[in-house]
Amino acid sequence: MQPKLTLVGAGPGDGELITLKGIRALRQADVVLYDDLANNSLLEFAPEQALTMYVGKRAGKASFSQAEINDLIVRLAQEHGHVVRLKGGDSYVFGRGFEELAYAREHGIPCDVVPGVSSSIAVPASQGIPVTCRGVSESFWVITGTTRTGELSDDLQLAVHSKATVVVLMGMSKLEEICAMYCQAGRAHMPMAVVQNGTRPDEQCVVGQVWNMPKVVAQQGVGAPAVLIIGEVVTLHPSYLAECLRTAGVTY
Amino acid sequence: MQPKLTLVGAGPGDGELITLKGIRALRQADVVLYDDLANNSLLEFAPEQALTMYVGKRAGKASFSQAEINDLIVRLAQEHGHVVRLKGGDSYVFGRGFEELAYAREHGIPCDVVPGVSSSIAVPASQGIPVTCRGVSESFWVITGTTRTGELSDDLQLAVHSKATVVVLMGMSKLEEICAMYCQAGRAHMPMAVVQNGTRPDEQCVVGQVWNMPKVVAQQGVGAPAVLIIGEVVTLHPSYLAECLRTAGVTY
Repeated sequence: MQPKLTLVGAGPGDGELITLKGIRALRQADVVLYDDLANNSLLEFAPEQALTMYVGKRAGKASFSQAEINDLIVRLAQEHGHVVRLKGGDSYVFGRGFEELAYAREHGIPCDVVPGVSSSIAVPASQGIPVTCRGVSESFWVITGTTRTGELSDDLQLAVHSKATVVVLMGMSKLEEICAMYCQAGRAHMPMAVVQNGTRPDEQCVVGQVWNMPKVVAQQGVGAPAVLIIGEVVTLHPSYLAECLRTAGVTY
Repeated sequence: MQPKLTLVGAGPGDGELITLKGIRALRQADVVLYDDLANNSLLEFAPEQALTMYVGKRAGKASFSQAEINDLIVRLAQEHGHVVRLKGGDSYVFGRGFEELAYAREHGIPCDVVPGVSSSIAVPASQGIPVTCRGVSESFWVITGTTRTGELSDDLQLAVHSKATVVVLMGMSKLEEICAMYCQAGRAHMPMAVVQNGTRPDEQCVVGQVWNMPKVVAQQGVGAPAVLIIGEVVTLHPSYLAECLRTAGVTY
């Protein structure tokens, strides 16, 4: 029996947005460790006798700490063979995938990475918003809303002044703070979208402008997990103008 | 016959990094329009009777202008039905995908987008470089090296001062200029990688630091198409230290 770890990006939520290579890894799995953002239907690609184990968070509470997951990967690989770690989106986009891989490698376990479709690009696309568009945006900047310290990333301080499309993942708990930063930088009227459960059947979206986004999001009951998109490209959303008018009417 | 356009992200080069959804679209294609960055093996998923057509660039020369491609999509959809536009990486990451979709939609053609694995994330990963890593990088910023005007993007002026992992696509012809910007900003020692043909069998990579990257790239004969990665995460590349020592030896 050969211990092995394969990190597999499960894609943004839609079960068909996994890659062929990811499916091939799942078919050769002895163990599958998965969390909330990976579509559960993907577990069906694993062999029937494979051990599948949920290691995600529920109601904000981690069922396993990162250190416990790291240990689990090593122990299960040594005991069962090929561990597939199925992560929402791409494993290297805030997935802590590199930490898991580095730990396994330190323990002599061969590792492989199968990239996935990242929510940072696919969730805006699912709403008709391209992260880049010639003449509108020449770059996009993907930032975590949840840093190690619990503070907003310093990178956001610079991002509010940039012309990049800014995409914030895991940022819903900091929504007010993020919008306030834009307002303080004189960019209250930046177009913004918030997309919950992007690419899933229960996808929900709010489009508008930064200045009243926290209010509109609260009114429409949109919550985590969500992707925040801030930039001129949001004006390309099919209902951007109508939504701005509507929410302006609601607010005044 | 129903005219239709589906933009499909073909992934970064490895033929197995297409999604199930992308394959499903190809299987229902009447026409496939593809360019260089999409893996040709993907054409085999299209029905035998489907028309396949190359609309990419060869030796830097566009065989079709963007306006011609837009017209072609509309005409072929009206004449043949379902046009699948297969693009390397993801269609909305500098792929001019939105322009094609907007044009088709103006002509009354229903459109759909199937996101793909972006080279901006998967190519660094293929070299063992995570675009984000807790304690190292809280964001990544993806910038085009080829703007409409032919000048470097203004966004890069800000990016050289950021703590983000900076990823430049289509930037090889501007390599010297980009490295000079970092040097002028006092960041000559930023870790940097250049990866040609990422995720393909002929993948080639140079790692080192910004200050001597143009020289090392020339010495090692690495060329376009390539992804440039600049940031502390490059130090996580398995041979970063060895390469810095080696190239320092080569240079002095």
